Amino acid sequence: MSESKIPYKIYLSEEEMPTSWYNMRADMTNKPAPLLNPGTGEPLKAEELAPIFCEELVQQELDEETPYTPIPQEILDFYRMYRPSPLVRAYCLEEKLQTPAKIYYKFEGNNTSGSHKLNSAIAQAYYAKKQGLRGVTTETGAGQWGTALSMACSYFDLDCKVYMVKVSYEQKPFRREVMRTYGASVVPSPSDTTEVGRQILAEHPGTTGSLGCAISEAVEVATSNEGYRYVLGSVLNQVLLHQSIIGLETKAALDKYGIRPDMIIGCAGGGSNLGGLIAPFMGEKLRGEADYQIIAVEPASCPSFTRGIYAYDFCDTGMICPLAKMYTLGHDFIPSANHAGGLRFHGMSTTLSQLYHDGLMEARAIEQTSVFEAATTFARVEGILPAPESSHAIKVAIDEALKCKETGEEKTIVFGLTGTGYFDLTAYEQFNNGTMNDYIPTDEELEASFAKLPKVGE
Amino acid sequence: MSESKIPYKIYLSEEEMPTSWYNMRADMTNKPAPLLNPGTGEPLKAEELAPIFCEELVQQELDEETPYTPIPQEILDFYRMYRPSPLVRAYCLEEKLQTPAKIYYKFEGNNTSGSHKLNSAIAQAYYAKKQGLRGVTTETGAGQWGTALSMACSYFDLDCKVYMVKVSYEQKPFRREVMRTYGASVVPSPSDTTEVGRQILAEHPGTTGSLGCAISEAVEVATSNEGYRYVLGSVLNQVLLHQSIIGLETKAALDKYGIRPDMIIGCAGGGSNLGGLIAPFMGEKLRGEADYQIIAVEPASCPSFTRGIYAYDFCDTGMICPLAKMYTLGHDFIPSANHAGGLRFHGMSTTLSQLYHDGLMEARAIEQTSVFEAATTFARVEGILPAPESSHAIKVAIDEALKCKETGEEKTIVFGLTGTGYFDLTAYEQFNNGTMNDYIPTDEELEASFAKLPKVGE
Repeated sequence: MSESKIPYKIYLSEEEMPTSWYNMRADMTNKPAPLLNPGTGEPLKAEELAPIFCEELVQQELDEETPYTPIPQEILDFYRMYRPSPLVRAYCLEEKLQTPAKIYYKFEGNNTSGSHKLNSAIAQAYYAKKQGLRGVTTETGAGQWGTALSMACSYFDLDCKVYMVKVSYEQKPFRREVMRTYGASVVPSPSDTTEVGRQILAEHPGTTGSLGCAISEAVEVATSNEGYRYVLGSVLNQVLLHQSIIGLETKAALDKYGIRPDMIIGCAGGGSNLGGLIAPFMGEKLRGEADYQIIAVEPASCPSFTRGIYAYDFCDTGMICPLAKMYTLGHDFIPSANHAGGLRFHGMSTTLSQLYHDGLMEARAIEQTSVFEAATTFARVEGILPAPESSHAIKVAIDEALKCKETGEEKTIVFGLTGTGYFDLTAYEQFNNGTMNDYIPTDEELEASFAKLPKVGE
Repeated sequence: MSESKIPYKIYLSEEEMPTSWYNMRADMTNKPAPLLNPGTGEPLKAEELAPIFCEELVQQELDEETPYTPIPQEILDFYRMYRPSPLVRAYCLEEKLQTPAKIYYKFEGNNTSGSHKLNSAIAQAYYAKKQGLRGVTTETGAGQWGTALSMACSYFDLDCKVYMVKVSYEQKPFRREVMRTYGASVVPSPSDTTEVGRQILAEHPGTTGSLGCAISEAVEVATSNEGYRYVLGSVLNQVLLHQSIIGLETKAALDKYGIRPDMIIGCAGGGSNLGGLIAPFMGEKLRGEADYQIIAVEPASCPSFTRGIYAYDFCDTGMICPLAKMYTLGHDFIPSANHAGGLRFHGMSTTLSQLYHDGLMEARAIEQTSVFEAATTFARVEGILPAPESSHAIKVAIDEALKCKETGEEKTIVFGLTGTGYFDLTAYEQFNNGTMNDYIPTDEELEASFAKLPKVGE
């Protein structure tokens, strides 16, 4: 099909929507290292994970062999309310940059949760319902995951308890209200509703909380209440599996018009969006069928890939979760308080860590003022106010398109636009007022954090 | 096509998008009454409007004969970034209500401005640019219009000055920041940047502003600065013309699947969304080709159609704008402070007023707690957090679907979902906390307001 025929937005029809998720691990020669029991240092078994996670999700977590998992009809039905999401040709951005590059973005912000998180939230809620559970617990920081999970639980009529980092609970009342509108109970963490919360409050009466503490509370409630399980919105293999719908749709839309991307760019915090977006492309790369340049973009203030160590570490600050082998800044690492938006996790998906370790993808770290500059450029021409997280990918896409301008190359660039920035306007305000700062951790800070890594699996 | 084949979302392809706007007035036997010069009481001529509005927009405002106006290519190009908007079959809402009715909604919230306002903002910015103007001025209350106009001006590189009602400026900092991100200057009104603003501040030092005052400031700036014009986001005929894209797309999508609606429901403030949504359906009705039940839904706290008078009145509280014959509560009427969301205009589009007067459409007034109840029901099953304005239409759509449940009728209901509620979470919070109140103006209040109507055109 000729160039001029490519529409602004490529929508697949509902019949063209993928009906299976794709598991990259099935095609990996070097599988990601297994999760370890922090007590024994042994690989975790399904029965050890079952008290925390839903049964089918445990299977998905551990399954390294099955490439395709059919998406259950109930999840497909829900997906059809907001999917397929559009693959947009960024004609206006190309024009603004005067680049010969062809830029496409997969837009996942077109649902009330405002981000791609819903793709996995609805799957996890479905399996919880199917298992006959009463409800699920989780933590949320910036609020994207909590919002998505609240929606999903309301759809399946499941109870949803969200432990929200206290400082976010107070600073982001609108995020809290969306979750309440969807019927979730939202508790500022640390709280007196859990043992661990009461302990922390006694030790640190003035604390404003942390993601690590909220995880601990959510896990305690899940494991000590009949009919509850804990769910997580990133990092895990099961989450990457569900998020593969992003990449599968992207690939189907590109294939429909005979477009072959040169480069795929995504932001990376725990890795759920990136892992989903690149899945089928990485699959082709792993199977030697095609090659693509794949770039993970992370904040310079939380640079797990670019400055972290590939080692076993705890997934949470509280050291109650399993050990995962991943690129990590150390479970004690907390990004500077002036870091806006998400992508704050100290580690990274074990699957993406292995792929990065094997040289199958690159990574770049970007400072936040350049991120917001790219976000503003994008918003003004493309008409979507991007989330700060997504804007990391925008920044590198713009950089690459400008390189093409210099070299005259007509590269095809695809990036993931994971969500909208409606709830991040405090950060935009700082940027608009010129009061936003950059902060990059020093080598000494990182060394101190690395020193606390557990001595396991070495 | 069989019922089971109707997808969750009907997307037209970009080729199927309408390429002309439709002007209902061309098919009206009883044309809406003309705007009058408040000084002379005579119908306003193009040359009297030209210092305030862009030239081509003046032509569109006064043109009662031309049914179809081709949409300029530049506007079509912008439309393609977010249009065609989806027509969604509300399968999940139907299931929740257990109704035999078939419910569809046209979703206009899928762009950063978050509402249908962008359809006219981009058109007005285009004509301003084409005329070689430097910029435009406007007022905004809740912020949907100001946001849309900022986006549109940023796209055409026009200066944009927004006078934002001071109480909203302070209570809705996020709305303000979106506009600033798009490069607009946002001034809290009343301000010391205008003659009229200084006057009002001197007389009422503590005032938190009103839409009427913000209009006066915006008009003063437009008419006293070389290369500026004033633009308005509702009420005017030109705005209804641009918004006809909503209805034309809706009709095309329904026709594609052979669906004939029984009932079309839209919320009404100044009438821009409703006038756009119903346009082609009303056209068929006016030409005697088909019949549809058309329902305008307004807040019980600002009930222009259901309790207003059909008379000439000022379009603004400050009495500097033209006189329009419309259903009005009186230009002095301001809805109770506890009224959340938009739909606060004291009057109504002259075109819709005439159609209502001629019995071609009905109107209902709804109290806001029932509106938020409907909004919450909808959000939980359909996955979109609706704007309070749009939720007026949702409420009546649900009422009608429940009537069908009683009677067993399989009516096809189409309603307009004009936007998202991301910036209205303070109101959702009140509703969630049970602190939201209803307020209906008393007959005495309305009588007092009617007494101030100008004695013109009687």
